[in-house]
Parts: sequence; C-alpha cells; structure tokens
Amino acid sequence: MRRVRYSVAMSLDGFIAGPKGEIDWIVMDPDIDFGALFEGFDTMLLGRKTYDASRQQGRGGGMPGMKAYVFSRTLRQSDCPDVTVSATPQETVAALKADCGKDIWLFGGGSLFRSLLDLRLVDTVEVAIIPVLLGSGLPLLPPPTQRATLRLTNHRVYEKTGTTTLAYGVV
Amino acid sequence: MRRVRYSVAMSLDGFIAGPKGEIDWIVMDPDIDFGALFEGFDTMLLGRKTYDASRQQGRGGGMPGMKAYVFSRTLRQSDCPDVTVSATPQETVAALKADCGKDIWLFGGGSLFRSLLDLRLVDTVEVAIIPVLLGSGLPLLPPPTQRATLRLTNHRVYEKTGTTTLAYGVV
Repeated sequence: MRRVRYSVAMSLDGFIAGPKGEIDWIVMDPDIDFGALFEGFDTMLLGRKTYDASRQQGRGGGMPGMKAYVFSRTLRQSDCPDVTVSATPQETVAALKADCGKDIWLFGGGSLFRSLLDLRLVDTVEVAIIPVLLGSGLPLLPPPTQRATLRLTNHRVYEKTGTTTLAYGVV
Repeated sequence: MRRVRYSVAMSLDGFIAGPKGEIDWIVMDPDIDFGALFEGFDTMLLGRKTYDASRQQGRGGGMPGMKAYVFSRTLRQSDCPDVTVSATPQETVAALKADCGKDIWLFGGGSLFRSLLDLRLVDTVEVAIIPVLLGSGLPLLPPPTQRATLRLTNHRVYEKTGTTTLAYGVV
C-alpha cells in the first residue's frame, strides 16, 4: 500500500518555516538527490495556508508529474484549476492510500500533518534537520495534539552543510 | 578554554519536557555511556525553574562531583546550600569560562540557554533526539530570540532505541 510521508526541512528547534513563513535558512546540500526524492512520489497533499503561500510566491500548488490535493472548507475548486480541492481529508486520503500509485507526499504544513496524524493516516515522518536555531516560527507539529511514538528507520548526514536526514515510521 | 555545552534530550519536535515538565518519554538507550558523558564536566548551570523542578522531585540541584550554579534574582543563597546562587549570569559564566577546569554543562532549561546564547556564552548545542512527537511542552529554545547558525561537529545513532545524538558548534 502506498504511504503518506511527511517529508520536510526543519530547524534544530522544530520549525519548518520562520515566523513570517521564511524559508531562506534552508540550505540545499549539493549531495541530496532531490530527483530521486521526488521520483518516489506522484501525489502531494497541501494544507490551505501552504497552498496560499505557494501561490503568493508565484508558484502553483503542484509540481510537474505530481497530482496535488489541497484541503480546505472555503476554497472553491473553480478558483484552483491546478489542484484538486477537498473538504474531507479523511475520506480523500484514505481513498488515495487504497488506490494504486507511488507514495504520497504530505508537503505541509504542520496543521495538515496534525489532522492526518490524529486520523492515523501518516506512515512516516522524514525531516532534514538544518543546522540552525530559529527560536520561533511555524512548528513541525502545532498544538494541540496527542503524543506520538516514532521508530527510526533511516538516517544520513550530509557533510558539506551538516544537514541530517532522519526518517521515522509512525508507531 | 573550557566550553559551555547545552546538552539535553529533545523530542523530534523540539521539546525538552512535556507541558507539565514530563520527562517520562526520555528513553535511556543502554549503549549511551552516561559515565563518560558526565566525566567531561565538573560544573553545571541551571535556571531557576529547572532547579525548582529538581528540588520538587526530591533531588538537589547538583550531581556528585559537580559544582552547580543556579541563576535567579529572587532565590536567597541561604535557602540553597547545595548550589551557588547568582543573579548575574554574564559575569558568573564569563568568569567560570576563564577559570581552569572541565567543560561546563548548561543543564537547562531553555530560558537560561536563550539568555546565555544571546550573550554569546554558549559553545555547543548537543541534543539526543528521542523518537517521539510531544506536540507541546517546554521548548529547546523559547522565543523571543535571534536566529543562530550552527555547525554539525558530531553525530551518532543508537540503534536499540533510535535515539540520535547531534552535536553542533555555535557559529
């Protein structure tokens, strides 16, 4: 069965973006094979705020070769031709997981992660820890939520930038 | 010169304790050599809240073989015979660093780390990442603070529990 994988860059103190959504602190290590990473997915899941931020930056919601789903109770499908809008994450994600295909990239943000984690629909948490302390920002997992136990399945250190990737299964 | 090292256990989402100070999620990996770790220090630094929590749990502020300093503007030295109380972290820590001895363990909590980080008195940040998501709690580094760039200097994965230790120098 295809997996839902929350794969994000994170500061050491647990933020996926700065207080104003800044991502300028994310260094791109030249040894990370982003092509191989993207190749593992054919579907992306975005929260409404993440989608809005992406559009404000002049990007659409999706990526080439990936089908994108945005979860919102207010967006209208006719206003978002580049993505599929859903107001029912549980049904939509459960159906996607039951379907055939590559893995599903839970692109963010933290609120969508929390919703899907609470619904037990997230299979892995994969963070690239950037060597920086932000002190504040958008958290990996915003409160309130239940404690979740993880199991480390993979790790790698990228020496050129000190980026450390840690992959966990959700127990 | 002896270093000030912030060495703590942390959840993947950046908390050093639960919302009520819980530390029951910290698994002790049998392969971590705590003796060797403690052997590197002869001095501990504690914030007032960390010291209070330690005393409430029936422990004193210190550890055998370590001199403990607690930073507070309200505690009286006569009430705290097991530690040295200081109201002037900048002067006290600068003097300790200039003195001879082993490294200095910045035991916590996050507020003391923030104060000393802002004063540029912290040399390393060393986290043992426990495979758990807490969702809320006492942060590694509470706001507000400046962004701080780190440099990865060491890492190790403890396979039995999936605990990952990452050591950084403060740039």
